[in-house]
Amino acid sequence: MAFDFNEVRDAYERIRPYVRRTLLEESFYLGDGERRYFFKLESLQRAKSFKIRGALNKMLTLTAEEAARGVGTVSSGNHGSSVSYAASLLGIENAVVIVPEGTPQSKIDRIRCFGAEVLLMGSSYDEAHRLGLDYIRRHGLTYIDAYYDDPKIYGGQGTIAIELLEQNPNIDTIVVPIGGGGLITGIAVAAKALKPGIRVVGVQTEKCPAMIKSYEDGVFYEEYPCEGDSICDALLGGVGALSYQMVKDCVDDLIAVSEDTVGRAVSFMAREEKFVVEAGSCTTVAAVMDHRERIGGRQIALVLSGGNIDGQLLASLLEKYQ
Amino acid sequence: MAFDFNEVRDAYERIRPYVRRTLLEESFYLGDGERRYFFKLESLQRAKSFKIRGALNKMLTLTAEEAARGVGTVSSGNHGSSVSYAASLLGIENAVVIVPEGTPQSKIDRIRCFGAEVLLMGSSYDEAHRLGLDYIRRHGLTYIDAYYDDPKIYGGQGTIAIELLEQNPNIDTIVVPIGGGGLITGIAVAAKALKPGIRVVGVQTEKCPAMIKSYEDGVFYEEYPCEGDSICDALLGGVGALSYQMVKDCVDDLIAVSEDTVGRAVSFMAREEKFVVEAGSCTTVAAVMDHRERIGGRQIALVLSGGNIDGQLLASLLEKYQ
Repeated sequence: MAFDFNEVRDAYERIRPYVRRTLLEESFYLGDGERRYFFKLESLQRAKSFKIRGALNKMLTLTAEEAARGVGTVSSGNHGSSVSYAASLLGIENAVVIVPEGTPQSKIDRIRCFGAEVLLMGSSYDEAHRLGLDYIRRHGLTYIDAYYDDPKIYGGQGTIAIELLEQNPNIDTIVVPIGGGGLITGIAVAAKALKPGIRVVGVQTEKCPAMIKSYEDGVFYEEYPCEGDSICDALLGGVGALSYQMVKDCVDDLIAVSEDTVGRAVSFMAREEKFVVEAGSCTTVAAVMDHRERIGGRQIALVLSGGNIDGQLLASLLEKYQ
Repeated sequence: MAFDFNEVRDAYERIRPYVRRTLLEESFYLGDGERRYFFKLESLQRAKSFKIRGALNKMLTLTAEEAARGVGTVSSGNHGSSVSYAASLLGIENAVVIVPEGTPQSKIDRIRCFGAEVLLMGSSYDEAHRLGLDYIRRHGLTYIDAYYDDPKIYGGQGTIAIELLEQNPNIDTIVVPIGGGGLITGIAVAAKALKPGIRVVGVQTEKCPAMIKSYEDGVFYEEYPCEGDSICDALLGGVGALSYQMVKDCVDDLIAVSEDTVGRAVSFMAREEKFVVEAGSCTTVAAVMDHRERIGGRQIALVLSGGNIDGQLLASLLEKYQ
């Protein structure tokens, strides 16, 4: 298990025909005389999430025989939709996405509409994961990892760094949301290979600061509880094995933001900047709101990793934060 | 005063380095077994409006001497912002945008931040227009028309049709919002030159159906009152001279939609499709909601012309229409 810039560079060439080169759009309102902020809008990526980058990179390295047998994963969220979408783009006919029983029908429909078969297993995510991995192995499918320890997945996510430094070579700081850590690890490894002095800052919700606590406590939190409710559903859970190994060396700072500021950030992004961005992704905007000096930099890229926010949540945040 | 496809083709080559090739994104929810709908997302264009296409096309045909003297227009909305942005992109230093006294500071800031000088003149839009044109003439500036009768402006707007037919040659129907009519005229002329059998449908708010009434009454309504309040601020007012001449020959149907359906469409686009789109542009989505059979087609492009919706209006529509 190793991961370096070569994985990202190879992924970049491999997935380029299939992914969108998403906009790097300057913020209208966040900048000041000293600093300029740029949104990397993966919320406008195919299937509205960066996750398709890793999924495509993995699937494009399958042998013909593996592709014919098919792929599977366990996820009711962006990763599940992205695996479904990527399989259909590549003509992989047998794609299975396993979700826990009780997953909302809207999420199941979203995955299914891209073409994958959706199977409901287990009463919790952990149980679905256990039963799902077993199903995938028994049926000879290739498992498409979300973030845990597959370098092909990390390589795909890291292509965002190559893109944004091509779009603006003057970016000196990149701010990235952290869930499992695959996104920030891919981005940090690539960005520092291309521009050694660049700063990479990770952001978590203070309701689930799994990576921050892993380092504080010196414990690899493969699972981590959410302390009460969080609107950052895409960021909840533990950290990946590979990212736990690497983040301490390639990430410069880790910041926890409050749910209140994240809610304000979602509303600000829709009301003022006119982009629908999911709450977990708006942690990077929230970090600028509360920690502008600590983040520092002169030209700062904020990675907005996805756009799949529940419509009712969006409406209520716009109502609450004016 | 003449306008044909050559203007659009020339504009396409001219403005290509400066404009975004905006996404043509398939709707997730509007389609059915029979019909597929695609959003042409000019709401993600530079300065968040299609208007920059016409403004750039006009400015790129100025002589060096004209460019040095500068440009001017009268508009507090998307056209004003787009002229300001286009001038800065092209290095035209003297750009003046005239707005009526009492224009909200946020709109003035938006125009100013792109670089143009903003001058307040007159207590109404009509007075601002009269005084502004006089100022522009006296100062030797080139007037950048919004939609009235400049073929260069129509040519720029029409480039949207070339793009979307390249992105999906199977589009058989294009639905376009109508304000002054420059956008639909440019698009219809280009689309029918490229694909003679294609249908083009125009949509207005029933609060200001200037084009529809112009044809019904046989009167060129250069000005037209809004019947009460409308959320479709970008579509209000009369029709352009050139579009009034041409729409009857190049547009297949004109539909008026209710403000209520437009409000539902804005909410649907943000809540479900995850795009912030201004109300006037959502008239095309509203037309599908209320007149699906009348619009017809198998692969239908809905032009979403801009994204500059007031934040408070967006929040209130998401609250009202669940």
